Amino acid sequence: MKFKIDNLQYCNWSRKIFEINREAGLDAVHATIVYHEDFDEHLNEIKRWEKMFKDNSDLIFLGKSFKDIEKANKENKTAIFFGFQNCSPIEDNIGLVEKVHELGCRFMQLTYNNQSLLATGCYEKVDSGVTNFGREVIKEMNRIGIVIDMSHSAEKSTLDAIEISEKPIAITHANPSFWHAAKRNKSSELLKTLNANGGILGLSLYPHHLKNNTDCTLESFCEMVAKTAEIMDIKNIGIGSDLCLNQPDKVVEWMRNGTWTKNKNFGEGSKNNSGFPRQPKWFEDARGFKNLEEGLKKIGFSNIEIEGILGNNWYNFYKTI
Amino acid sequence: MKFKIDNLQYCNWSRKIFEINREAGLDAVHATIVYHEDFDEHLNEIKRWEKMFKDNSDLIFLGKSFKDIEKANKENKTAIFFGFQNCSPIEDNIGLVEKVHELGCRFMQLTYNNQSLLATGCYEKVDSGVTNFGREVIKEMNRIGIVIDMSHSAEKSTLDAIEISEKPIAITHANPSFWHAAKRNKSSELLKTLNANGGILGLSLYPHHLKNNTDCTLESFCEMVAKTAEIMDIKNIGIGSDLCLNQPDKVVEWMRNGTWTKNKNFGEGSKNNSGFPRQPKWFEDARGFKNLEEGLKKIGFSNIEIEGILGNNWYNFYKTI
Repeated sequence: MKFKIDNLQYCNWSRKIFEINREAGLDAVHATIVYHEDFDEHLNEIKRWEKMFKDNSDLIFLGKSFKDIEKANKENKTAIFFGFQNCSPIEDNIGLVEKVHELGCRFMQLTYNNQSLLATGCYEKVDSGVTNFGREVIKEMNRIGIVIDMSHSAEKSTLDAIEISEKPIAITHANPSFWHAAKRNKSSELLKTLNANGGILGLSLYPHHLKNNTDCTLESFCEMVAKTAEIMDIKNIGIGSDLCLNQPDKVVEWMRNGTWTKNKNFGEGSKNNSGFPRQPKWFEDARGFKNLEEGLKKIGFSNIEIEGILGNNWYNFYKTI
Repeated sequence: MKFKIDNLQYCNWSRKIFEINREAGLDAVHATIVYHEDFDEHLNEIKRWEKMFKDNSDLIFLGKSFKDIEKANKENKTAIFFGFQNCSPIEDNIGLVEKVHELGCRFMQLTYNNQSLLATGCYEKVDSGVTNFGREVIKEMNRIGIVIDMSHSAEKSTLDAIEISEKPIAITHANPSFWHAAKRNKSSELLKTLNANGGILGLSLYPHHLKNNTDCTLESFCEMVAKTAEIMDIKNIGIGSDLCLNQPDKVVEWMRNGTWTKNKNFGEGSKNNSGFPRQPKWFEDARGFKNLEEGLKKIGFSNIEIEGILGNNWYNFYKTI
């Protein structure tokens, strides 16, 4: 087996992007379908996706389990797994966890950057950890089969989630902070705990998560992967590129601000650099997986390790949930 | 001027209750209209109230400012001021603060018992204080004229709210924990800080907040008022009875559980005492204000102080917001 999986994209989806993902050989993509949308608004996104699946049935279909990754591989298509970057679609209702799963959700972040009803986001001043409601929702996600994704969550909340969850959790798109100390990146201690509990890290190619941002070199990225493999088992390392192809800047503004402030919050950006950052030349879209393959080979990973990092590890993770 | 105000009731409203409130001489009642309802559900409650105002226009009307307390007094009616015991109606949208104010809201708790998007409730294990969104909402509530009510919030969150808010805040229904150490009651340190910032405390007559619960004596309650007046200015002490007249037990179950758990949470109650507790004999409904008046006189308060506690202090607080 040899699967390629990008376990986080939030593109301005189009046939062109689905073609690029196929050209890159992606068997599966975990696609963010909502951030701050409530349950009804999330239904609208699902309707949009139903149309996209219909219009592009030669390229994509809705993925529901690891078997769909195998199917995609056989049929030269990309299985799209739905995920949420905030828990807004379940509102304050534990009964909606089962409902969003029925409608396709397979990954849900307990928080985006701010405090949610479940846990604390990495942009809050104080992190109180997983809340009363959060505990109940984690149990329910375990029962139903939705992966707990803590990519945007604060440290104590993430450690709590690892402890409470009876199944391994995921950080679908972030990098180690030993390499680049961004708020969104993760401490070595956290990564070790994640790893010890069978959790998986999707390494991000989003410039704000990269050393030297857009100017990050492929070599530097691959060195980081090698160092990460010193603190985590390689089998728990994958890719979650966080590609936001063709998104207008108003989308990143909405991601950061939702409807929670009348001011402007710049998140990982700044006033003079508020839009989507430019991707590094060697990873402008998913075809950059080819470059990653070469870079990882050069740094000394074996073929089987590289196949793991570029897809098989995520495939095996999907199998366990 | 001599006004009587009960600054928290959540009754199963009926003409009978409005008559009792009039018999008690209440010029104003802060009525909880929602707990966990979202914006649309809160609109349904407002429609219910519109019908009640129409059907009982000889007894009640919607209060919008302190002038309506004066009007109610003149016309022998009770002005009903709308309040929320959770921030659910504003959802995750700061724009809804202005909307709920337009529709009548004058008090909003930043939390019920659990973590909200704004702050931490008193039943959470860890209290992270006011959140990013919470800061923005407090500013907006200040601007618009909705009182920040921290009755069910945890201590650090309440201290944060006092600090962030440019206007005095309220704890509409709770007692000092020096008298009865319940999770919902407040520490002396907190009450001193509230007082120092011009905030006001509505003393509660809800049995779970009373020493010896249902068996609490009028004398004990009035002694507590006297001791509270040693740590707070009398002008910052009022009544928020928390009367839940004629509510079926399923309502308290819903207040505690909303839709956040599949288990049963008993809140201030317990498995064997899960329903609404019985009121003390001397405060079975608002007509108990008469007993309070006598009890406070007996303990040594002057007439002007008693008039303050039973209504004028709230009236003056309404004037400042």
